[in-house]
Amino acid sequence: MNAEIVSIGNEVVYGVIADTNAAYLAARLEDLGATVIAHRAARDFEDEIVAALAAACRSAELVLVTGGLGPTLDDVTREAAAKLAGVELVEDRRASEMLHSFFRARHRAPHPVNLKQATIPNGSTYLPNRHGTAAGFAMSHGNSTLFFMPGVPREMKMMFEDEVVPRLRETLPESGNFRRTLLAIGLGESDLGAKLGDLMQRGRNPEVGTMVQGGIIGVRIIARAADARTAREMVETDIRRIREILGPFIISDDETTLPFAVAKLLEEKGRTIAIAESCTGGLISGMMTEVPGISRFFLEGVVAYSNEAKTEILRVPEAVLERHGSVSVETAKAMAAGVRDRADADIGIAVTGIAGPGGGTPQKPVGMVCFALADDGGVIAREERFGGNRSEIRDRAAKYALNLVRLRLLGVA
Amino acid sequence: MNAEIVSIGNEVVYGVIADTNAAYLAARLEDLGATVIAHRAARDFEDEIVAALAAACRSAELVLVTGGLGPTLDDVTREAAAKLAGVELVEDRRASEMLHSFFRARHRAPHPVNLKQATIPNGSTYLPNRHGTAAGFAMSHGNSTLFFMPGVPREMKMMFEDEVVPRLRETLPESGNFRRTLLAIGLGESDLGAKLGDLMQRGRNPEVGTMVQGGIIGVRIIARAADARTAREMVETDIRRIREILGPFIISDDETTLPFAVAKLLEEKGRTIAIAESCTGGLISGMMTEVPGISRFFLEGVVAYSNEAKTEILRVPEAVLERHGSVSVETAKAMAAGVRDRADADIGIAVTGIAGPGGGTPQKPVGMVCFALADDGGVIAREERFGGNRSEIRDRAAKYALNLVRLRLLGVA
Repeated sequence: MNAEIVSIGNEVVYGVIADTNAAYLAARLEDLGATVIAHRAARDFEDEIVAALAAACRSAELVLVTGGLGPTLDDVTREAAAKLAGVELVEDRRASEMLHSFFRARHRAPHPVNLKQATIPNGSTYLPNRHGTAAGFAMSHGNSTLFFMPGVPREMKMMFEDEVVPRLRETLPESGNFRRTLLAIGLGESDLGAKLGDLMQRGRNPEVGTMVQGGIIGVRIIARAADARTAREMVETDIRRIREILGPFIISDDETTLPFAVAKLLEEKGRTIAIAESCTGGLISGMMTEVPGISRFFLEGVVAYSNEAKTEILRVPEAVLERHGSVSVETAKAMAAGVRDRADADIGIAVTGIAGPGGGTPQKPVGMVCFALADDGGVIAREERFGGNRSEIRDRAAKYALNLVRLRLLGVA
Repeated sequence: MNAEIVSIGNEVVYGVIADTNAAYLAARLEDLGATVIAHRAARDFEDEIVAALAAACRSAELVLVTGGLGPTLDDVTREAAAKLAGVELVEDRRASEMLHSFFRARHRAPHPVNLKQATIPNGSTYLPNRHGTAAGFAMSHGNSTLFFMPGVPREMKMMFEDEVVPRLRETLPESGNFRRTLLAIGLGESDLGAKLGDLMQRGRNPEVGTMVQGGIIGVRIIARAADARTAREMVETDIRRIREILGPFIISDDETTLPFAVAKLLEEKGRTIAIAESCTGGLISGMMTEVPGISRFFLEGVVAYSNEAKTEILRVPEAVLERHGSVSVETAKAMAAGVRDRADADIGIAVTGIAGPGGGTPQKPVGMVCFALADDGGVIAREERFGGNRSEIRDRAAKYALNLVRLRLLGVA
């Protein structure tokens, strides 16, 4: 079944907010076995909404609509739906009761403008909203089924899950779609394209696609089959092939993120860690502590921005700072050994670099970052160059550091 | 001039990512005086892209397209554009030079798949990409002008600002739209609605709207007038009124974010700061070090997750930890005084709390966070409760801490 998502509202079209509703619904429809073929967003103008709905119905059997069900004058999605269907808006008794009880529970009376929120196009099916005043509704047009939901994300999600999903399950065949995303790090998208070219051929099933976000690569595998089990097996076969090709570049095949993958390895190997940061300024500790319960493995973090902090807390010898400078593999090594020692941790990881925009020199340009990792096997170090602005350089460096820990724990660094 | 935004990519249509590019471009087009009338998103299928582009051209004179310019087989926006125009793709000499110099700067050779990124539809105008390998291009179709940009947000933004905006300014009349956003913290959205109700009347010009994202309130003011100067004056009058109403809740009226506002105050007052974090785990240091050159004011940060780190580095007396527990205002106070002392800083700030999901008790539930700030005026402390999940609690707590520093530096905490 093909589906389209239609988002209604000036705030979306004029760019005041990003349309997260469409992304949410699209991902859920994929799970349910529908194929989302397009999104569109229309302004709060009745004729434009009617046109968008009609166009969506021409190309998709299922149309999910969000927004424009509010109480104010500029909310005209109800009117547009009624016009599309060629019917009047009528008050729905259950919607009206729900509206009044919503206000009663809050010890308030509905404002007159709220009353239109209990109307739906004549002949459509009322969809209750348990978290707000806007009634939803479902209706048919031509060969398409349309579901109208509020634009407030919390209300939309509840209505979709509680009211729309059960109805979709009745009409959709048991989904034969199965989807998994591998996360990887340390490869460019074009390297990845070269390595996975075969799998990424257009028209192949499973469909394999890649995307890069914040230095993390997602390899998305979607199989479409007659039943979920077959689809799942197809995806798993691909995952095995991709694991053979990408090896330790792969962080996870179950959406486990980098810090959680590191935490899992620390737990498995029974190791503790301490972190010394200069240019990343706390980001590595911040990422590591996303993981609940990490205090068993993450002993302490030091943000040693000043040289004084490096010498005093981390015991970096002043001679090292003087001879090699604060951004150098030598300083990184001393920081890693120093923080490991201070915290009495199994692993010490350290980062020092030039995040910019100022502070670069021809020898040590903006984007140069030095890493070191100290453990019972000694101290290893890396010098890297990252592109991008200050925040990107810091983010990439923090992830590089966590990945170095991951690779070390896997025995490949 | 009417404009449409077309986003291309399975990752958008299938809901893998939310379409932030469309929101960015829509807001910028508003600034420039164009009227965005719709968005649409199409999958990476040539015929669907051609259809989306053709439909957009039928309703808008200006069409901004993002995505599908990557090196892999599934990127077919170039091919679709050429098909729409009825021309061949040709290598652009300048695009090709740019591609090679991009790889040269990184001491790598372009992969063969990258070469197609230097092709554009015959007769179109090349738009350089200074931050990536995908060339952009501009072309006409019927009465419409189309600009094709990469989907990677950083590359898209640069290309839009550097290449598209100057071209749009040539054709668009001088805009009488003027927009500013005030940032505020410490108020709920409904408090805000009550305080600013008058200004937020529908149909008022300037239009005043609010939104909340990650605990930060945005108050958006848009004036529409015959010329930019009048619009600007209208906005400035509103800003003065809102400043009177909201006072120190306001972080900035020029989109200066909280860490930058704190950094500015540290600089103005000539103060230095040190940060001790438990539950926020490095986030406060991470936010503070978003600011370039902050090393002059931010001396050091300590992520003292373990009690041992609290006693050893921060000199929190063991008796305090035993009597009050690691999450307590007393411990926060000792941490703040300890880190201030250790770093010899003017201000010490400390946070300790329960970010969850585990670790809560009836007395100290998940979301309880204690803050302390030590300076030459003594030590102040706060105990707060935050809602949300682990990551929201940590984020809100980090911002609360920075805001406490801000209010202290303003003399109101």
